[in-house]
This record gives sequence, C-alpha cells and structure tokens, in this order.
Amino acid sequence: MCVSPLLVPQQRNYSTPPKIRVEFDQSTGVAVMHMQSPPVNSLSLDFLTELCISVEKLEMDKSCRGLIITSAQPKVFSAGLDITEMYGKSPEHCGAFWRSVQEMWLKLYGSNMVTVAAINGSSPAGGCLMAMTCDYRIMADNPRYNIGLNETQLGIVAPFWFMDTMKNTVGQRTTEIALQLGLLYKPADALKIGLVDQLEPEDQVIAAATQTISRWLAIPDHARQITKSMMRKKTIDKLTSNRESDIQYFVNFITKDSIQKSLGGYMEMLKKRRA
Amino acid sequence: MCVSPLLVPQQRNYSTPPKIRVEFDQSTGVAVMHMQSPPVNSLSLDFLTELCISVEKLEMDKSCRGLIITSAQPKVFSAGLDITEMYGKSPEHCGAFWRSVQEMWLKLYGSNMVTVAAINGSSPAGGCLMAMTCDYRIMADNPRYNIGLNETQLGIVAPFWFMDTMKNTVGQRTTEIALQLGLLYKPADALKIGLVDQLEPEDQVIAAATQTISRWLAIPDHARQITKSMMRKKTIDKLTSNRESDIQYFVNFITKDSIQKSLGGYMEMLKKRRA
Amino acid sequence: MCVSPLLVPQQRNYSTPPKIRVEFDQSTGVAVMHMQSPPVNSLSLDFLTELCISVEKLEMDKSCRGLIITSAQPKVFSAGLDITEMYGKSPEHCGAFWRSVQEMWLKLYGSNMVTVAAINGSSPAGGCLMAMTCDYRIMADNPRYNIGLNETQLGIVAPFWFMDTMKNTVGQRTTEIALQLGLLYKPADALKIGLVDQLEPEDQVIAAATQTISRWLAIPDHARQITKSMMRKKTIDKLTSNRESDIQYFVNFITKDSIQKSLGGYMEMLKKRRA
Repeated sequence: MCVSPLLVPQQRNYSTPPKIRVEFDQSTGVAVMHMQSPPVNSLSLDFLTELCISVEKLEMDKSCRGLIITSAQPKVFSAGLDITEMYGKSPEHCGAFWRSVQEMWLKLYGSNMVTVAAINGSSPAGGCLMAMTCDYRIMADNPRYNIGLNETQLGIVAPFWFMDTMKNTVGQRTTEIALQLGLLYKPADALKIGLVDQLEPEDQVIAAATQTISRWLAIPDHARQITKSMMRKKTIDKLTSNRESDIQYFVNFITKDSIQKSLGGYMEMLKKRRA
Repeated sequence: MCVSPLLVPQQRNYSTPPKIRVEFDQSTGVAVMHMQSPPVNSLSLDFLTELCISVEKLEMDKSCRGLIITSAQPKVFSAGLDITEMYGKSPEHCGAFWRSVQEMWLKLYGSNMVTVAAINGSSPAGGCLMAMTCDYRIMADNPRYNIGLNETQLGIVAPFWFMDTMKNTVGQRTTEIALQLGLLYKPADALKIGLVDQLEPEDQVIAAATQTISRWLAIPDHARQITKSMMRKKTIDKLTSNRESDIQYFVNFITKDSIQKSLGGYMEMLKKRRA
Repeated sequence: MCVSPLLVPQQRNYSTPPKIRVEFDQSTGVAVMHMQSPPVNSLSLDFLTELCISVEKLEMDKSCRGLIITSAQPKVFSAGLDITEMYGKSPEHCGAFWRSVQEMWLKLYGSNMVTVAAINGSSPAGGCLMAMTCDYRIMADNPRYNIGLNETQLGIVAPFWFMDTMKNTVGQRTTEIALQLGLLYKPADALKIGLVDQLEPEDQVIAAATQTISRWLAIPDHARQITKSMMRKKTIDKLTSNRESDIQYFVNFITKDSIQKSLGGYMEMLKKRRA
C-alpha cells in the first residue's frame, strides 16, 4: 500500500512560514484562503500538502460553507506546478508529488463548499487548473495577467483530467485549440471564451468574490451540493478509478531524458529572464 | 408489475374540463396543443396523463408531422410540477406521479414530430423541461416572464435527465451555474445562453412557431427523424434503462421529512403571495 | 477478409490526370494539398484513394509537419461525396466506397500533422466533413459560398461519426439544429457558430493558412500530437471499433429503393440546374 504524503503532515518543514493563510468569518460562513508562497505560489509538494490539509479542515467544519481562493503574492495567482519537484528527482518523489496534485484537484473539484477563485494575478498551467476547479472565477482586469493551460509550450502534456476540467469549463472545441497551442489568455479573452466568469478592477476582486459567494450561499446547501456533485461526478470518478495508472503514466513521462531536457531548458530560460 | 397511470385513462375525472386542447390542421400537418389548466398549467398527474395521451394520438396519426405546444393561460407557459402531487402524499402516489413526468419527457424528447415550444409566459422548472424537449423554442419578449430549472431554490434537485436535457441545450458550464443557483432567466438572457432560440412580441409567438415549423417540415421526415433520434438516443436510453431506480430515488427523496418541510414552507409562501 | 481499395493503388485509372497535387516545402515542413478533380472535387472512390495515399505518404515523412488542404477548382472546396458512387451501384461497390470515406476521415482526423483547411469555395456535406477534420479552418469571405452537413436535404442521414465530428466542433445544440435542417451556412454565419475559425479575402486564404500553421508548428510536435490524440481518441475509437457495422448500415440504407429514388431525383435536379 502506498502512503499518501498528505496523511503525513509531520514531513512538512516547520521551520518555514506557512504557505497558506486562512481567514474564516464565522458570521458569513466564508473562508478566504490566501496563497502566500513567495515568489509565485508554485505548487510544490509542501504547498499542496498544506493546501489540502487546509481545505480538508474547512470541509469538515460544518459552519464553513464557502471558500474564496486568492493570492497574497503580487502579480500572480499561482505559477502552477513547481518544476523543481519534477526535474532531476527520483521516480518515487515524482510520484508522491503527482499524487498531491491529484489530491488538490479531487478536494477542490469535489468540494461541498461554494468555491470562488479570486484570480488577482497570472494563472498559468496548474494555477489555471486550480482556478477551474472552483464554482466561479473572478479575474483582475489587468491586461498584463494571463491564464491558461500552457503545458505544450513547455513540451509537456496536460493530463486527461486537466483536459476534462477545461472541457467542462469552455467546451470541446475551445479546449482543443487552447491545449494544442498551450494558449495563455488575457483577462478579456478569458472572459470571452468562458475561462473566467467576471472581470473586476484588481483591488475589487476579493470584494466581488465575497458578493458572489453570498448569492450562492442563499441556495439551500443540500440541494446545491447534490446538484454540483451530479454535474461533476463522471469527471471525478474517471480520475478516482485511474489514479494509480495516472501516477505511473506521469512518472514514466516526466522522467524521460527528452522531457527532463525540455524542463531543464525551460528552467534555464526562466533564470535568465529573472537575471 | 406496476400499471402506468397513462394506460388507465378511465381514472381521469371526467367532471373537469379537458386540460389540453388540440387543434390539428390537416392541410399543414401541424397540431397546436393548448395547455389550459387554470391557473398556471401545473403539471399534475391528471394533466400529464392527458398530455401524454394527446401526444401519443398525434404521434400515431401519420398525417400529423408537427406539434406546437403553447399555453391558453395568461402570463404562464407552465408553472412546472404540481407540488400538491408530492406534498403529504403516499409513496405510491408520488411514484405514479413521477412515472407520468418521465413519460411526458420520453414522449416529447423522443417525438418523431417536429416540436416547437411557443413559450407565451413564464416557464420555471418542469415548464422549462417541457420546453427544452422541443426541437425549437420561441419565447414571448416580455421581461416579466422567465424560464429556467429553479429546483435548488425550492431545496430540491433537478434529476439527471433534466440535467442532461439542459446540458444538451446550453452546454455543461452554463448548466452547472444555472442548476446550482436555480436560475430563472428573462427572455433576453435565455436567448443569450441558448435556452430559447428566438424572441417574438407576445401576440406573434404562435405565428412565428407556425412559420418555423413549416421550414422544418420542408425536410424529408425520414431523414430528419433518424437524425433527431441519433442525436438524442444516448440521453433517452439513460432514463429508459434507469426508469425504476429513478422513481425509487425520487420517492425516497421527496418523502423525506426535511424535503416535505421545504415544500410545505414553499406552498405557504405561495399562498401568502397570492393573498 | 476484405481488401481495402486503399491498398490497391494499381486499380487507379492512370489515364486520368492526378486528382491531388501536393507541394511540399522542405524549408517550412509544410505541404499544400491541392484538390484538382473537375468540376467540383467530388469525393469519388478514386479521388479518396488518391487523397489517402497522399496523406499517408506525408504522414510517414518525418520532415513534413503541417498540411494545408485547399482546392484548385473555382468556387468550390469540395462538393462532398460523389453521388454516382452510390447510385445504381452494387452493394460491394457501395461498401468499398464507404470504406474509403471512413479511411479519409480516420487519416485526417487522427493525423499527427498540423492540418489547416483553406476553404476557398463552397463545402457542403463530405466537403464540410473533410474541413472539420482539420485543426483549423480558414474560409474565403465570399457570401456566395457556404458550408455545412446538408445530408437531410437530400433525404439521407449524416452517419454518427459525421455527427460526432460536428459536435466536437460546434457543440450538441447547434449540431442538432444544423443536422436536422441540413443547414448550409454562409461564411459569416459559419464563423459565428464556430464551424470555421477565421475568414479571409479569397486571394489571401492560403497565405493566412500558411501563417496559422507556422504558429502551430512553434509548439513541440510531441506534446501537441499527444494532446490532439487525447482530445480526439474517443471519437476515433468509436468508428474504428464499429467500422464494419457502419459499412453494413450504409450499404443497407443507400441501396434501399426509396433512397435510390431520392438520389436519382437529386441528380436529375442537378443536371437541369446545370443545363
């Protein structure tokens, strides 16, 4: 049996500050989850472990009915999967990492809470995936930000459940183009194709999310939850029943020499860009 | 074996006037079905039984090729399922009622006739379902009317085949939002999301439906019918092969104390609003 | 066992000029396939056989990464399936013909190359199918041209894989209307529903296709190909695993007296229109 890293929180390095900060307003039943992992909220194994534990705690708290996910970092919602978790790492590490990505998706896409993404910065790849798991997406109306599943631009492939989540959001044809080209959309274009639901001035994104969530919370929880679950069940079941083979597939793919070389080149490019 | 109420028309109370009036124009091959059950064409067991018998008669009449469904009541197309059929009733009654809702959907969604909904009033819940079974929807352009599956607002859940019908009409993402929030759309918004296909001034809805249907009837019946059946087969098969379990699920759900309480509260609210 | 006509190129009548002309630019890795079968690039058995052989050759040439399909005939991209291959022909001939239509679709819809349709003329029925197999569609902005699956207008039915291809392109609801009515869309309307992706002045269609394809070729082949294959696999598998029964169904349908009569009437009408 494989022990999930998510069940072993003591593995977390407690010398670092928390990567997730949760504010829960008991009076409204809404929690705001601030992602605060400098510089760009990369989805590392540690980050995802913390995030999943936080979501699970809120999920088990009956008084928490809504969740807003947002970033405490400037200019970025989340930069997506942390490439250092897949570059030059053992197959075991890559597998544990991938399991935590799956876990994040399963927890958020299947959440009983109303979930709203307050996308106050760029949100490529895994960041876009996280936003797409929510019930509603509000993005800062800043043309320097973008959002999308840009995996192919890095020479890698969005797995089937990323694909399914996008199809459920923007439909088959738009997904086919977006994924093949690894497109990143500016907010106005993301709104046009339905990748986000609403644009707001940057400083009003969280306020708008709070307003939206109160509208969703006016609906009886039980009826809304069953409806959400029925709409998403097929997509969730597909990963749940293929979880191990999906991990195996990812590990085989990502540890290939050619893919490692692509990732290495991409990291070099990022380093140079920063310098 | 369970005898369908639809096969026992003698159970109908013949002291009440007919709830359905059909005008069939032999020269055009088009029937117009006027729903005339005051005050709001609620889909009661009697109403649905009459409607299904009418549709079946037309279906078997080879000279009838098109069907327009409209309302003879002011301001409303149909208010949806008759709550009195599910409130304080025996499981047997609830089951017979649900079977008649299924039968209505199966007959209309799988009809060989060209079907056009002339939506000359509001059309919530079951009224919206009925409209969505048609090949084409023309709605009166009156901003006081609305249409949608608003079940969650009543604390209940649109069953999977309501959901599938809506997904086939407006797509996965719009359905996800519409059903979770139980949204009712004004005509202009319904047109925008594709829930209706055309708006017309209220007094021209039926004329427009007649014009539309003549265009559809210009297509050879055989080819059009096979095409329609191929497009809808998967959705129809899903209910056909899960009919009994769907009834069981509905009866178990609707007879729960908490749901009965919700329905009771809703009926009280309606009474007060009328008074 | 049934020998595919595609494997027997020597059956081709070498006294006729080639129906397909391929220009391959080694420097860009892009091939342009000109359909040049007068008068209207009808998809005959010979035409499809040539086309499939050409595509297969390009597919096996690693240096060829992109394919533009266009017409060398004035005013028409392709008029669709050659009715003379299904009218008054033996079941064996109809079956061999249908297999070649399937083969064209399987080769193009599953191509590893980037495929762009440069639709420089009308593209009904099978012509529209061919265009829909491509990754991207650019149509000449000439309101006298049209595109669509108009099978029902001829009294025949678009088979399930035509239907699936259209659903993948424009969604369920638009497909339901388009196929039942056999709609042919002008370029502006085709753009609006997403049946084509871009309009260009007639003399710039190929230049635009070249520009588009270079953008797609900027994506690493491997990642793009896997993505494309994942997006289309389910649709392709459905035909692959039902190929023989689909042929049988087609042959039974098309050889019916009533259908043969329809086709005969249609051919008479075409003849008169030309005269």
